Amino acid sequence: MNADRLSFNQITSDRASLAEVVDACARNGVPYIGAWRHKVAEIGVATAARIVRDAGVRVSSVCRGGFFPAATQTERAARIDDNRRAIDEAAALGAPVLVLVCGAAADRDIVAARRMVEDGIGALVPYAAERGVRLGIEPLHPAFAAERSCITTLGEARKLAAKFDAATVGVIADVYHIWWDPDLYAELAAAGDRVLGFHVSDWLVPAQNVLMNRGMMGDGVIEVRRIRDAVDRIGYDGPVEVEIFNEKIWEIPVNEIVALTKARFLACV
Amino acid sequence: MNADRLSFNQITSDRASLAEVVDACARNGVPYIGAWRHKVAEIGVATAARIVRDAGVRVSSVCRGGFFPAATQTERAARIDDNRRAIDEAAALGAPVLVLVCGAAADRDIVAARRMVEDGIGALVPYAAERGVRLGIEPLHPAFAAERSCITTLGEARKLAAKFDAATVGVIADVYHIWWDPDLYAELAAAGDRVLGFHVSDWLVPAQNVLMNRGMMGDGVIEVRRIRDAVDRIGYDGPVEVEIFNEKIWEIPVNEIVALTKARFLACV
Repeated sequence: MNADRLSFNQITSDRASLAEVVDACARNGVPYIGAWRHKVAEIGVATAARIVRDAGVRVSSVCRGGFFPAATQTERAARIDDNRRAIDEAAALGAPVLVLVCGAAADRDIVAARRMVEDGIGALVPYAAERGVRLGIEPLHPAFAAERSCITTLGEARKLAAKFDAATVGVIADVYHIWWDPDLYAELAAAGDRVLGFHVSDWLVPAQNVLMNRGMMGDGVIEVRRIRDAVDRIGYDGPVEVEIFNEKIWEIPVNEIVALTKARFLACV
Repeated sequence: MNADRLSFNQITSDRASLAEVVDACARNGVPYIGAWRHKVAEIGVATAARIVRDAGVRVSSVCRGGFFPAATQTERAARIDDNRRAIDEAAALGAPVLVLVCGAAADRDIVAARRMVEDGIGALVPYAAERGVRLGIEPLHPAFAAERSCITTLGEARKLAAKFDAATVGVIADVYHIWWDPDLYAELAAAGDRVLGFHVSDWLVPAQNVLMNRGMMGDGVIEVRRIRDAVDRIGYDGPVEVEIFNEKIWEIPVNEIVALTKARFLACV
């Protein structure tokens, strides 16, 4: 694979601004970025849209919507409103996909939380469809089930997405979250053209803090290329985002991180 | 539930010897312990068997066999030999079940590791059957897939167990490992009388180190009683083991930990 489909998710260089990330990507020949809302908010969406357009970089996705479950109906409605703003931002940035991190149970009831997620996505679909933004349900590693996402497997995300129009709702396959799954390859095949995004990184050992345990492709135990081959076979031909939460990587200057990301992408993905 | 089925897994008081744990259980009216091999080895299996017998405490399971995948055939054979010794120890202690933590990939190939696990269990079954010890495949939380177990879901464990005689091979359901699973309740029902053990603890938030993130029942987010009700419905009526890896709990004197465990068991399980 050449770098034509490489997207640098800006959380991989969390200390840098959106303008700095866009500049580093343009210098290094990285055609896409994954944008985060808190970084866009620092400069405003209009300025962010101008910066990426002027640099000739495209936005592969916006992170993140979701977090649907909440204790009260009022709070759930407020979160849906916030998701509508996220859809607006994705549209303004020309991003085809809003990534959904669905949220965890407000209390201990994970079954009820899953219903709230389904209801929340249902409430967003017409708004997203009107604005041409697709909703990508990202199953998160089960280690995040208590705090970030009650949707934990590709199978669960696929079945949830299937309740909605394929033109608007799909799934995001991130190797860090799904590599361990005994049904991984069958589920990728079943997901087919519902796959709206493919994210890569690596699982480092020994694992300590699971949130910050991601590494550059090649530094951990994930068979990234084997999974990419499976994603190729289902016909996914969109951007491949490198998304790494790692304190040590965050200490590296953005231009170096982007260069390293591109090199590892070419060598390992 | 009264405490008639309570088992105190001795890792919950990792600083104490087997004799100290047995004594604390006898004093507190806890009828079972879960024994760990490294603790048994400190005094020898004959002495350990005498201690539990004299105290009138029963051993619900021995932890742990497994760790089948290895880079070479020689090493894999050595691990099967070690598992035979674990079966001998379980038999000597009167424990009906040896818990299997299946092991992770020797290299990155998790698919190959799963085949090695199946081969390893197959090699053990006749030996275990002759000695009246059942093999309990314990799916571990996916956070441990890279370092401890390539078998991560109850469904995967159930399908693996189904390849062998139900008289000898089954699964262990531990709420810490399986609570997040979207198929949890369906899989418990499907496992039915293959369930050879039920382990309880809790998942603390915020999660830091996932190995040491377990807490006493009631201190975290797991719906322990809801899961116990489902385990009741499938007819499981054996011991319920409390198994907690937690540095802070390990600092508490063994008699206090056992008393707290019993109180939380009665209140929350």
